[in-house]
Amino acid sequence: MANGTAHRQPARRPGGRNARVRTRILDATVELVARDGIAGFRYEEVAECAGVHKTSVYRNWPDREELVVEALLRYAEDLASIADTGDIHRDLVEFLLALAGGLETPFGQTLERALQPGRQSPTIRTLTRVLDQRVAAMTRRVETAVERGELPPVDSGFLGEMISGPVHLIVNRGVRRFSREDAERVVGVVLAGIRATAPER
Amino acid sequence: MANGTAHRQPARRPGGRNARVRTRILDATVELVARDGIAGFRYEEVAECAGVHKTSVYRNWPDREELVVEALLRYAEDLASIADTGDIHRDLVEFLLALAGGLETPFGQTLERALQPGRQSPTIRTLTRVLDQRVAAMTRRVETAVERGELPPVDSGFLGEMISGPVHLIVNRGVRRFSREDAERVVGVVLAGIRATAPER
Repeated sequence: MANGTAHRQPARRPGGRNARVRTRILDATVELVARDGIAGFRYEEVAECAGVHKTSVYRNWPDREELVVEALLRYAEDLASIADTGDIHRDLVEFLLALAGGLETPFGQTLERALQPGRQSPTIRTLTRVLDQRVAAMTRRVETAVERGELPPVDSGFLGEMISGPVHLIVNRGVRRFSREDAERVVGVVLAGIRATAPER
Repeated sequence: MANGTAHRQPARRPGGRNARVRTRILDATVELVARDGIAGFRYEEVAECAGVHKTSVYRNWPDREELVVEALLRYAEDLASIADTGDIHRDLVEFLLALAGGLETPFGQTLERALQPGRQSPTIRTLTRVLDQRVAAMTRRVETAVERGELPPVDSGFLGEMISGPVHLIVNRGVRRFSREDAERVVGVVLAGIRATAPER
């Protein structure tokens, strides 16, 4: 729908104005969820922060849960990408660095707290499924590496937990920034361990 | 100080009554911190839950922070133990299972939430140092294995993050219980990876 002239001639593009309003509302929601938590933000503040009338928020998202989920989807999409350069080690290192970068944001930290058990609402369970999509992209990349013979057959979900667990621990504890050297070491040890423990074929 | 007759003749042991009162207060504190969080529990409730007079709590712990830290110390001590059977794989598997068991308790979950950045009080920073002692016991065990030639020279702190990261991720997300099979796989892959990536000597 978007094209190169859209920014210069916004009034000519059908739905263009509402698309921009929606984008501003979603960005404002991400910001307020990061500040006040998923249960804490208010529609009035979203409207103010987005520079739109409150009725625009209600009209586009009558359901609060849908607003939160859609705002998160945009956030998760940025994190979901994993490249395929043909080198699984390199691609997983970049994936971990992007994951750490996302976790270090205020919104990432709010999500991490919200995702812990004992405080799970229906919204949170939906968000968990959204985040699962990010994991799914990474596991598909691992499976491609297995098909190419770059890795032995491996439980890709387990491999994902092995490499992302240390990232969550280091970032969430706030002990230090998760560095490229950390990413290289984590991926190096896990891939070497997977190869060394693979059953003989 | 404690001996076998203490339970039968409590009145005869100097300080015995107060020691039991203190234990009951600490246990009550752990329970209430698990329920209400570190900032949420009240001295009145601790006294009621411990079955003691409120002044006993204030007299023993005029400082709220010291009460929380001492209650946590008791909790952390239970988790700090790591055996030395001479088999580093086996000892780390048991360590991970004990860690997962601790994290799965309501108190463990409260701690996990409290330890995240952005909400760190002086109490929390003290608690972080306490938990560091648990990690220190595990890293000493790893260093013993290196000295015996069971493992190549390794950054024991990094090894600790590699094995405990997945435990935190799996338990905190509440996706599934962390099983013995998980512990075996995590330790197996990490130790094999450490051995495979060690510089030639």
